[in-house]
Amino acid sequence: MRIMGIDPGIAIVGFGFVDKLGSKLTPVQYGCITTEAHTDPGLRLKQVYDSAVQLIEMYKPDAVAIEQLFFNRNVTTAFTVGQARGVLILAAVQQGLPVAEYTPMQVKQAIVGYGKAEKKQVQEMVRMFLKLSAVPKPDDVADALAVAICHAHSSALHDKVKGTMKR
Amino acid sequence: MRIMGIDPGIAIVGFGFVDKLGSKLTPVQYGCITTEAHTDPGLRLKQVYDSAVQLIEMYKPDAVAIEQLFFNRNVTTAFTVGQARGVLILAAVQQGLPVAEYTPMQVKQAIVGYGKAEKKQVQEMVRMFLKLSAVPKPDDVADALAVAICHAHSSALHDKVKGTMKR
Repeated sequence: MRIMGIDPGIAIVGFGFVDKLGSKLTPVQYGCITTEAHTDPGLRLKQVYDSAVQLIEMYKPDAVAIEQLFFNRNVTTAFTVGQARGVLILAAVQQGLPVAEYTPMQVKQAIVGYGKAEKKQVQEMVRMFLKLSAVPKPDDVADALAVAICHAHSSALHDKVKGTMKR
Repeated sequence: MRIMGIDPGIAIVGFGFVDKLGSKLTPVQYGCITTEAHTDPGLRLKQVYDSAVQLIEMYKPDAVAIEQLFFNRNVTTAFTVGQARGVLILAAVQQGLPVAEYTPMQVKQAIVGYGKAEKKQVQEMVRMFLKLSAVPKPDDVADALAVAICHAHSSALHDKVKGTMKR
């Protein structure tokens, strides 16, 4: 099963593709989509969407996991990131992919086993899980891989529960 | 010039197409896109997007005007509406249409001449501007027509300024 993790944003969207075979996780590709500030906001949304479509067509994931952000900051930021999330989710749904959403707390819980873990701890665990020589940069990429790993763990748990219930 | 006004949302998206010929405004079509609660959020975004694409293809506007919302309420609402706005703007940009954004205050200013006008006043002015026998319902439709009229006035102003400046 191939999972695409996404850390949404408008200036920078982190993405990471992870293959899950049994309990083994293998990184396939990761990086970020960036758009220029001072560009028309509609065009930036289109760039994010087009890049996401390209990535999905190229790496053919089976599922998409995207971070559900909660800001305490300002509502305008929530709006802008929300718009980017909208076109990213659309790109996935149009290709018939299931989209799972996880809060930062759920991601930390899944990766470190503690919902209030530090960012550095999460990143180090991502590096270890995927056997990478260094933590991927920028943070958005590590965050995207983290949400992909979180989904891998969650879906493994679902499979286990289903197995136990003998459905 | 044909303007498509949009009042964004996820459960209900108001839309209104208005033709502007000189200072004359004519309503072409208006209504709303609705999506079912308890449906997958990604599918609802796709429904909103697909309906917007259909409407644009059917009524061929020259420009899109969309309400820029500011919530004092909660950030989750801002996120959800932001996601819907994202796919609506994408639908317009993909067809090469310019997208203008107006705050509720700008809309009120343009329609009633007073940025803190009551909703009822705005709706009544929309009815009068478009020579309708009744205020369109639900509110989202009247709001969408209001933002279209706001854009018609703003672009008329731009034309005038350009004319004066003899560019």
